[in-house]
Amino acid sequence: MEDEAVLLKEPEIFRNISPDFIRSILGIAKRIYIPAGQVIVKEGDIDDRMYIMMEGTVEVVKTLVISDPDDEQEEERNKVFTRLEARDHAVFGEVALLDASKRTATIKAVTECTLYEIKKDDFLALAEENFELGYRITLNLARIVSTRLRKADEETIKLTTALSFILKEL
Amino acid sequence: MEDEAVLLKEPEIFRNISPDFIRSILGIAKRIYIPAGQVIVKEGDIDDRMYIMMEGTVEVVKTLVISDPDDEQEEERNKVFTRLEARDHAVFGEVALLDASKRTATIKAVTECTLYEIKKDDFLALAEENFELGYRITLNLARIVSTRLRKADEETIKLTTALSFILKEL
Repeated sequence: MEDEAVLLKEPEIFRNISPDFIRSILGIAKRIYIPAGQVIVKEGDIDDRMYIMMEGTVEVVKTLVISDPDDEQEEERNKVFTRLEARDHAVFGEVALLDASKRTATIKAVTECTLYEIKKDDFLALAEENFELGYRITLNLARIVSTRLRKADEETIKLTTALSFILKEL
Repeated sequence: MEDEAVLLKEPEIFRNISPDFIRSILGIAKRIYIPAGQVIVKEGDIDDRMYIMMEGTVEVVKTLVISDPDDEQEEERNKVFTRLEARDHAVFGEVALLDASKRTATIKAVTECTLYEIKKDDFLALAEENFELGYRITLNLARIVSTRLRKADEETIKLTTALSFILKEL
């Protein structure tokens, strides 16, 4: 466990979190093994679990454009694919620790994967027992979400501008 | 002070926060008076202060579309205007408590306003002194930001879909 706590100082959610606190968090986590090809998280599902990658590679698939579900080729084209490697200690689904919410992407195991799974209620219970841990993790989470919000807001303005420009030209 | 602490249980950032904690937060806040017509927060500025409205009405102006700055009429059309009243104990700029960040809207006093101003560093110092307070406020903040992110993500998919549909028809 000790090595893993040191290892896990890298992901943003564990920034400035002491190895002792990371150990407490791993204490409420479940180690799970996912075979290659299996979907871990499904876009649109409502869920309340966060994952930390320990081994393997996953593929992240996100819908950019809502497309005709009968046209599979089009549906594939309207998605974006990225990969996450365990060696980056990627964390995903972390927003679920705040509120059970709709998954915004599908995550599928490319190779066999080892993950830590943490449930929202277990995290919130741990935070009630240790407010310093709760505060530091929640502050990191809030900053992660706020960086994403800033990017999404910039994206919205760009898209609205493009749309208004095209509509004016029509 | 007591009445105000009870009054301030309504804004989302103070949800489930005890009047004692709200009193501690008001303890680091500065009461400020803004004359009618004055800009309190300017879109695009980088700032680290949050505001709580106690008296008055403000106007929120947000750019939706980047427009030709020489065409004032167009610029006005490309903005959205909403009003916030003190009686709702509106809070704005709360994301600044997480990280000094670009203001995403301009906020202007319509009438004379009384506000509480809270600086990021003062909030973070208070949270280090009282982790329970820090945790509860940060959890509320994180949830506020995550709800906004969810909406922004939905908006992006709608806009991308509209854009791709129009481009296909051209």
